Amino acid sequence: MATVLVTGFDPFGGETVNPAYEAVKLLPGEIAGARIVKQEISTAFTRSAVAIEQALEREHPDIVISVGQAGGRSTLTVEQVAINLAEARIPDNDGEQPLGTPLRTDGDTAYFATVPVKAMVGNVRAHNLPAFVSYTAGTYVCNSVMYNMLYLLDRRFPGIRGGFIHVPFAPQQVVGKPNGTPCMPLHDMAKALEYAIEAAVKNEDSATAIAMGETH
Amino acid sequence: MATVLVTGFDPFGGETVNPAYEAVKLLPGEIAGARIVKQEISTAFTRSAVAIEQALEREHPDIVISVGQAGGRSTLTVEQVAINLAEARIPDNDGEQPLGTPLRTDGDTAYFATVPVKAMVGNVRAHNLPAFVSYTAGTYVCNSVMYNMLYLLDRRFPGIRGGFIHVPFAPQQVVGKPNGTPCMPLHDMAKALEYAIEAAVKNEDSATAIAMGETH
Amino acid sequence: MATVLVTGFDPFGGETVNPAYEAVKLLPGEIAGARIVKQEISTAFTRSAVAIEQALEREHPDIVISVGQAGGRSTLTVEQVAINLAEARIPDNDGEQPLGTPLRTDGDTAYFATVPVKAMVGNVRAHNLPAFVSYTAGTYVCNSVMYNMLYLLDRRFPGIRGGFIHVPFAPQQVVGKPNGTPCMPLHDMAKALEYAIEAAVKNEDSATAIAMGETH
Amino acid sequence: MATVLVTGFDPFGGETVNPAYEAVKLLPGEIAGARIVKQEISTAFTRSAVAIEQALEREHPDIVISVGQAGGRSTLTVEQVAINLAEARIPDNDGEQPLGTPLRTDGDTAYFATVPVKAMVGNVRAHNLPAFVSYTAGTYVCNSVMYNMLYLLDRRFPGIRGGFIHVPFAPQQVVGKPNGTPCMPLHDMAKALEYAIEAAVKNEDSATAIAMGETH
Repeated sequence: MATVLVTGFDPFGGETVNPAYEAVKLLPGEIAGARIVKQEISTAFTRSAVAIEQALEREHPDIVISVGQAGGRSTLTVEQVAINLAEARIPDNDGEQPLGTPLRTDGDTAYFATVPVKAMVGNVRAHNLPAFVSYTAGTYVCNSVMYNMLYLLDRRFPGIRGGFIHVPFAPQQVVGKPNGTPCMPLHDMAKALEYAIEAAVKNEDSATAIAMGETH
Repeated sequence: MATVLVTGFDPFGGETVNPAYEAVKLLPGEIAGARIVKQEISTAFTRSAVAIEQALEREHPDIVISVGQAGGRSTLTVEQVAINLAEARIPDNDGEQPLGTPLRTDGDTAYFATVPVKAMVGNVRAHNLPAFVSYTAGTYVCNSVMYNMLYLLDRRFPGIRGGFIHVPFAPQQVVGKPNGTPCMPLHDMAKALEYAIEAAVKNEDSATAIAMGETH
Repeated sequence: MATVLVTGFDPFGGETVNPAYEAVKLLPGEIAGARIVKQEISTAFTRSAVAIEQALEREHPDIVISVGQAGGRSTLTVEQVAINLAEARIPDNDGEQPLGTPLRTDGDTAYFATVPVKAMVGNVRAHNLPAFVSYTAGTYVCNSVMYNMLYLLDRRFPGIRGGFIHVPFAPQQVVGKPNGTPCMPLHDMAKALEYAIEAAVKNEDSATAIAMGETH
Repeated sequence: MATVLVTGFDPFGGETVNPAYEAVKLLPGEIAGARIVKQEISTAFTRSAVAIEQALEREHPDIVISVGQAGGRSTLTVEQVAINLAEARIPDNDGEQPLGTPLRTDGDTAYFATVPVKAMVGNVRAHNLPAFVSYTAGTYVCNSVMYNMLYLLDRRFPGIRGGFIHVPFAPQQVVGKPNGTPCMPLHDMAKALEYAIEAAVKNEDSATAIAMGETH
């Protein structure tokens, strides 16, 4: 039986919950015949990198998917790429605030996700839930976790595939925020995550263009 | 037993479905002890005004709530006010395209909704679904239906209370639209409508500030 | 020689400048042959209404245009309508915070601007600067000033035409705000205001549809 | 005397002008003591890569900066990274439409800009014009030009520094687009580009956090 390790962050930046892990907690114990192992990790540059490495050593999953929050986005986004850069607008939960430093001095400039990003987005959409491919995971702890994970898979765990998914704000988080701030109910996040993971387990490719970002 | 008449529009502007009526169809037959009567109306200035008047004569409901779509908004919005102005960027489903004309030459400049707008928004939010009060229903058929309804309630049906609710795009509508276009799954729309109607039936006031729009 | 009274607000809500009055200060002393009289007014419900009334009595202008800021909008917006409602998310500069009260118990539900809204937008655009008609001035002090002004023109000064224009954030205001927050350089605001006022002085009508807001 | 090669794209995607090159044309012939050489290039994957290589061979500049349009963004954005991926929602001007293919089979996953990205953004802001660092140049011809340029600098022209800047829509482009679509007057784009290039010529580093994108 295949194993999928799914991580989610604890709250940060003044929020009292982090829907990333709340949604992960709602996932079923099994998706597409694969066992789901859930783990909460800290929104902290150094500690989260250590936690991912230890979890990979302990669980030796077939797939690892980290889930974070990208407040302000209106849909689930599956990330294509992580970059070797840490740039923090606010300190992390341990008070660390890197300003333009590389994450790994011996790492590549970037790593692509090794899960089927477009098929994951396509499967969420096929179930009438909104999703896009994203080409930036930012420069904060989310990008750091994704970068460190893919760096480790490349160096130490070549048989494991990895990816990262961002979820929007939950409805209770946008009360008091600028009006029109998009959000997604928690049960929709959990269903969308489930469909994305299902496609990652099945690992079929998709040739359709499903881009996020109107750049040319 | 109280009666609530709930109307929803047919598709327009190149869309093949209108989530407004699709969501209305998902409503239960009874909310907070009131009977729900559902009616589809045409996205056409003249025909929709006639349809609303005939439905009020036929059903003599206690409350009438029309539901339309405001593509681009990220949440359910309960409208506060309808204005005596028709200004259409595109022709309606009957080819009518008014450009800056009043809806009723003998009508007031505007009418406020007579349902408890803030309590309706508050009840949706209390169930962790996103909603805001809106202070513009636009100048197209939605505003026209709301204006004509409130004009008729003021003149001919003083015992009936009325209001208007806008729903966002459904997820299948944003595929192919500019990325990041917000949307809401249909079952969430239906639940949010149900909680809004529940508050309208109970008719308790709310003193909290729940504004949409960052104007000062 | 015709006179145009142009008012702008002082800073509020934690901002140290209010581009509304900064832009007004950059206006020339004469536009389209009309004399421009500039006045700063306080972002306070009661005091601003008094200030507008006193200025109308003192200046007896041909046209009065108030300018406020709608942070988050991406263009100049010329307002169509003011409503008889005060609903404040934050206290005004005098600590007043109305929650759902009418502005004038003997006033109409709403008043339309009596300047040529669409022609003003059209003239700004003809000079390659961005503008839209807006159908909500919100429920804070901006709407209050516009409502009180149009109420007074209706009752006491029938020969004076009046309107309201919202400007976006200035660039220095969006530093530290959520990224992607739109803004407009101050000199562009001032030029756009000048073209809007020019059209108000010339007072020619426009039949083109120039709507803001994607509601239907 | 140092030389800066500045490229801008021709129109594409149904637009009749491309503000990218229109703004480049407005640049002065000299910035911070460096000579500015301007070149229009085609919005086409293959042809633009060839054009960049030929221009580098011909001009042997000290700095090369390509300018493209990211319609929908509200400010100038200076790009941090280009990725080895081509994914086109619409065909380019030569009818090419890659769907998920690498740009260079022997290239790195990504290259970072070698101009001082944060200092460039800082200098634009210091002159009260809006700018952000962006961490995605998309997957269309803009990313392709930036990627091919940095690949070539890395392999063949190690002494030349390179970067990419995105400009928003111009005001005349948003007429008829969804309302609220942000834009920037052409003369503001040209001034912002000038300040960004000035900082690139001076090449001083900046330690301030100037991120775009609310991801964590």
